[in-house]
Amino acid sequence: MNNQTKIEIRKPAADIFEAFVDPVKIGNYWFSSGSERWAKGKTVTLRYEEYDAQGDIHVLDMIDHHKIVYEWGREEGEPHTVTITFHATSPETTVVEVTEEGFDDRDPDLIPKLIDNKEGWVFMLTCLKGYLEFGVNRLRSALVK
Amino acid sequence: MNNQTKIEIRKPAADIFEAFVDPVKIGNYWFSSGSERWAKGKTVTLRYEEYDAQGDIHVLDMIDHHKIVYEWGREEGEPHTVTITFHATSPETTVVEVTEEGFDDRDPDLIPKLIDNKEGWVFMLTCLKGYLEFGVNRLRSALVK
Repeated sequence: MNNQTKIEIRKPAADIFEAFVDPVKIGNYWFSSGSERWAKGKTVTLRYEEYDAQGDIHVLDMIDHHKIVYEWGREEGEPHTVTITFHATSPETTVVEVTEEGFDDRDPDLIPKLIDNKEGWVFMLTCLKGYLEFGVNRLRSALVK
Repeated sequence: MNNQTKIEIRKPAADIFEAFVDPVKIGNYWFSSGSERWAKGKTVTLRYEEYDAQGDIHVLDMIDHHKIVYEWGREEGEPHTVTITFHATSPETTVVEVTEEGFDDRDPDLIPKLIDNKEGWVFMLTCLKGYLEFGVNRLRSALVK
């Protein structure tokens, strides 16, 4: 079982890729900051100041402006793999696709976990679109649980 | 089984309520237009120009600036009830809560239907936040299936 989300962003793939790997830019639409620039083989600590929370991701693979693959949840014993791909549909338009794998089909909480996960990705990707297309960086951190 | 999504919007409840019931304002963040102003007992046709699609909603209940309850899918034999509540957390801040009910727990497609439904609500509510807080009305209609 996996979760897939796709959104169109009116920006070149390179600009969107940069918004993921730059540890300052990420603060405009997702986590508040990252410990360093994302690169293949690196472990990056992503921090949510608002929730006083943080977690590590392990960057498994990266092709500049095309693809990022990372693992999270390793330390918690529930590793999930996230693949982000950047499909340029024109020089100025890109479809960003996020696929998360690692859900356990036998988990009694599978449905709420999948739904929560979908909520997070759709929210982040819409905030990313708002940031890159319109310079709005105050959409993030608004979901209420 | 139901699906619930909550988001904080830095606007008074009355302004957010108005963005739902005004058939022109809705075009800034959700459907492209509505056939008339929403009111209790009314049937409103909501149109997506981009997909050449439309559907009817039946407004079952409405308390100005506090709550909207409507049914959709009646004509398709799968009625769902949507309840939108506006919780004012300050004079200038509101938590908008959307709950959709009517999912059939025995449906073999229950999981993808719940996930698709969650995707739609999170996207719409984030677009609504972008429109009301920042005047951005070009986030909508960007999800790719």
